Amino acid sequence: MSTARLPSAGFSITVRLALSADPGAAGRLATVVGQAGAIVTALDVVGSDNKRMTVDLTCDTSDAAHAEQVTHILEAMPDFDVKKVSDRTFLMHLGGKIEVNAKVPLRNRDDLSMAYTPGVARVCMAIAENPDDARRLTIKRNTVAVVTDGSAVLGLGNIGPAAAMPVMEGKAALFKKFGDVDAWPVCLDTQDTDEIVDIVAALAPTYGGINLEDIAAPRCFEIEARLRERLDIPVFHDDQHGTAIVVLAALTNALRVVGKDFKDVRATVVGCGAAGTAIMRLLEKAGIGDIIPVDRDGALHSGMETENETWKWLGEHFNKTDFSGDLSGAVEGSDVFIGVSAPNILKGSDVAKMAKDPIVFALANPDPEISPTEAARYAAIVATGRSDQPNQINNVLAFPGVFRGLLDAQARGWNDDAAVAAATAIADCVGEDKVNATYIVPSVFDPHVAPAVAAAVKRVMR
Amino acid sequence: MSTARLPSAGFSITVRLALSADPGAAGRLATVVGQAGAIVTALDVVGSDNKRMTVDLTCDTSDAAHAEQVTHILEAMPDFDVKKVSDRTFLMHLGGKIEVNAKVPLRNRDDLSMAYTPGVARVCMAIAENPDDARRLTIKRNTVAVVTDGSAVLGLGNIGPAAAMPVMEGKAALFKKFGDVDAWPVCLDTQDTDEIVDIVAALAPTYGGINLEDIAAPRCFEIEARLRERLDIPVFHDDQHGTAIVVLAALTNALRVVGKDFKDVRATVVGCGAAGTAIMRLLEKAGIGDIIPVDRDGALHSGMETENETWKWLGEHFNKTDFSGDLSGAVEGSDVFIGVSAPNILKGSDVAKMAKDPIVFALANPDPEISPTEAARYAAIVATGRSDQPNQINNVLAFPGVFRGLLDAQARGWNDDAAVAAATAIADCVGEDKVNATYIVPSVFDPHVAPAVAAAVKRVMR
Repeated sequence: MSTARLPSAGFSITVRLALSADPGAAGRLATVVGQAGAIVTALDVVGSDNKRMTVDLTCDTSDAAHAEQVTHILEAMPDFDVKKVSDRTFLMHLGGKIEVNAKVPLRNRDDLSMAYTPGVARVCMAIAENPDDARRLTIKRNTVAVVTDGSAVLGLGNIGPAAAMPVMEGKAALFKKFGDVDAWPVCLDTQDTDEIVDIVAALAPTYGGINLEDIAAPRCFEIEARLRERLDIPVFHDDQHGTAIVVLAALTNALRVVGKDFKDVRATVVGCGAAGTAIMRLLEKAGIGDIIPVDRDGALHSGMETENETWKWLGEHFNKTDFSGDLSGAVEGSDVFIGVSAPNILKGSDVAKMAKDPIVFALANPDPEISPTEAARYAAIVATGRSDQPNQINNVLAFPGVFRGLLDAQARGWNDDAAVAAATAIADCVGEDKVNATYIVPSVFDPHVAPAVAAAVKRVMR
Repeated sequence: MSTARLPSAGFSITVRLALSADPGAAGRLATVVGQAGAIVTALDVVGSDNKRMTVDLTCDTSDAAHAEQVTHILEAMPDFDVKKVSDRTFLMHLGGKIEVNAKVPLRNRDDLSMAYTPGVARVCMAIAENPDDARRLTIKRNTVAVVTDGSAVLGLGNIGPAAAMPVMEGKAALFKKFGDVDAWPVCLDTQDTDEIVDIVAALAPTYGGINLEDIAAPRCFEIEARLRERLDIPVFHDDQHGTAIVVLAALTNALRVVGKDFKDVRATVVGCGAAGTAIMRLLEKAGIGDIIPVDRDGALHSGMETENETWKWLGEHFNKTDFSGDLSGAVEGSDVFIGVSAPNILKGSDVAKMAKDPIVFALANPDPEISPTEAARYAAIVATGRSDQPNQINNVLAFPGVFRGLLDAQARGWNDDAAVAAATAIADCVGEDKVNATYIVPSVFDPHVAPAVAAAVKRVMR
């Protein structure tokens, strides 16, 4: 059973309704909404006469169904007259979430003749003569493409490039806020690997880095590998490397808390797509003792029959004891469970069979592999991807600082050493005196994280 | 002979130099710079002691060679010690000219859960269910791609996508300043027509319009035509249609000044590339009497032998009297000369042979077909592309308002009626009481132009 999601602003609605102007009515309204499980965050009077008043009631709900339920309850009340229900999240999205601004003044002819013709021609010729000057004299110095084909957006699946836009715009906004990076959505109306590679390569002159996003596996691996081969700017698939960095950071601190060493630890990683594969590779780089990769048919091991090349490689490369069997068997005796798979596949009784002081990272979104409450009955440390629980594993901790560092270093590539350095920087932001079972990663709003990650990445990449 | 270009901020330099702290020295400095033909715009003291002072002298020069000449003269003076010369245009370009900003707050968890996960998922699903909602809920509503392959940048030729960036960034800055349009540079590392068409089509989900820019003819015609066929957003090649709109606006007012009617006028158009072709098509739409198209081998006429399909079409479609001969012969008796070709190809004696009250638009950049001073000896009205002469034909008068109108109308295409409406709106910004031989187009800084153009385009396209 999954823990019910708490009400959040992501599902906040504003209900405009008329009610009688007696002192009890507003009180009844708040009570009704509270009893329905929503949280009232604002009550604004927008109009009134002697007998009636009109108010805007804003409340957080748990999800879209809950928002509808709250609306229906209010509509059914005889003393409230619901006029309009608006959704704050949709209101926020009107016209999109990012904009392009000029950094230079354009007040008069002098400005125009420097920023545009005739002055701009000299800058163009300087770059034509020395192409590397583009990293100095154009937005390439600070700009990243957020590239998707819309094939694996959040947990929503293959919804296509137009529907992926709000996520990529949000990502661009986060890039600016946390890393001072200019990021631009590139939502491609094709899901052909060759085409995607050719298009991104053709777009590259404008950008100092490529952030691949929400592209389905295994296509994402080939796209990333081929672009790295072709381009002289870093190519970073956030679903792989961003996730792996934050998982490594969290695990570093989790092991500090339980007093174990990477080399002595066995982890079971469930979900062998883009994120799972990258996590396993990075944990190996960090010196973990053993990893058992598990996917929907059970543990991957050497000699298994599969057409999936990635799975074959994982089975041969990891799983030192060549364990074959189901998830429940794999986690038995494991020190760490890391899930990037599907909701509710791990039982409390499985966690009970893990080694001493189990660490459970149940990262499936929006519903984790095991309810965090259930996991906490047996585990020493629990982390999820959810913002309403402690220990949120959130890529926002990594990507803004990673690209800030790459751009500052004018890096031409990306490597595992930089990933380990980034993870260490995130882990160290918590501080040895502060780390505990419910605080293994810093807050996403901690202003020290991105600069620390940037400095670590720059040190490795320059 | 071309008119010497006047000093401009586009070639402005700042020279840091030390000189003796006596009252005469600064005076001598200003005199020397002035005698060298530069214009001192600032003299800032940056340091001083009892005997010497250090100053930053900023001056406009005519071009790069002139800037060097001024520097050398100062270096040769025994009482000035030149420390450093910096170029204001290059300083302005450091790190590029545009940036991406968030329009939504990201201060706390509530903001994050509306702009990003989990709230954003509902917005994605709304677009997946109704793709047209992208025009409402994403940046598509206000965003234009400025697409080039770097093959025909300004007058610089085929300098490639990286070197084209400063122009496209400048264009994006102008889009925002004059049209409140978010524009983004798409500088493609390919000059293959098929590839360009496929790439732009794949990028389209993000954009509400495509502005093609500085793509060489005849490739640009095919790219534009095929993209119009494939996309449900307007595709506008500014070098063609932007130029044609401003030329039509200028000619409308020029004919008002000389008291002639479009239907009675013969124009000779020299330069049959992208701009020239679009100008001729639009003048025809406006009802002009006759047009003689001229390119480097002379007038284009029916039955001429050429492998250039565009030229063949132009020769058959225009030139009613089937004139064949050179430029000089074509302009004889013409009412209007429009050049979008090469420097110094028209003589004063040619203008002298034109019909009464000749109108000369010499638009080659940076050096026009005839020096405006020479042309003015014979012509009633002279216009150029230069900012240091009256009657500057500048696309900035058209493209910001055109796209503002297209985006406001949520237009799915572009047509000649909109172009004529835009031209009329620009012409009318001058006002019948103000129009004269040196004021046939409004200033590029006239704040009324873009809104007037936008309203006219929106009226036609919605």
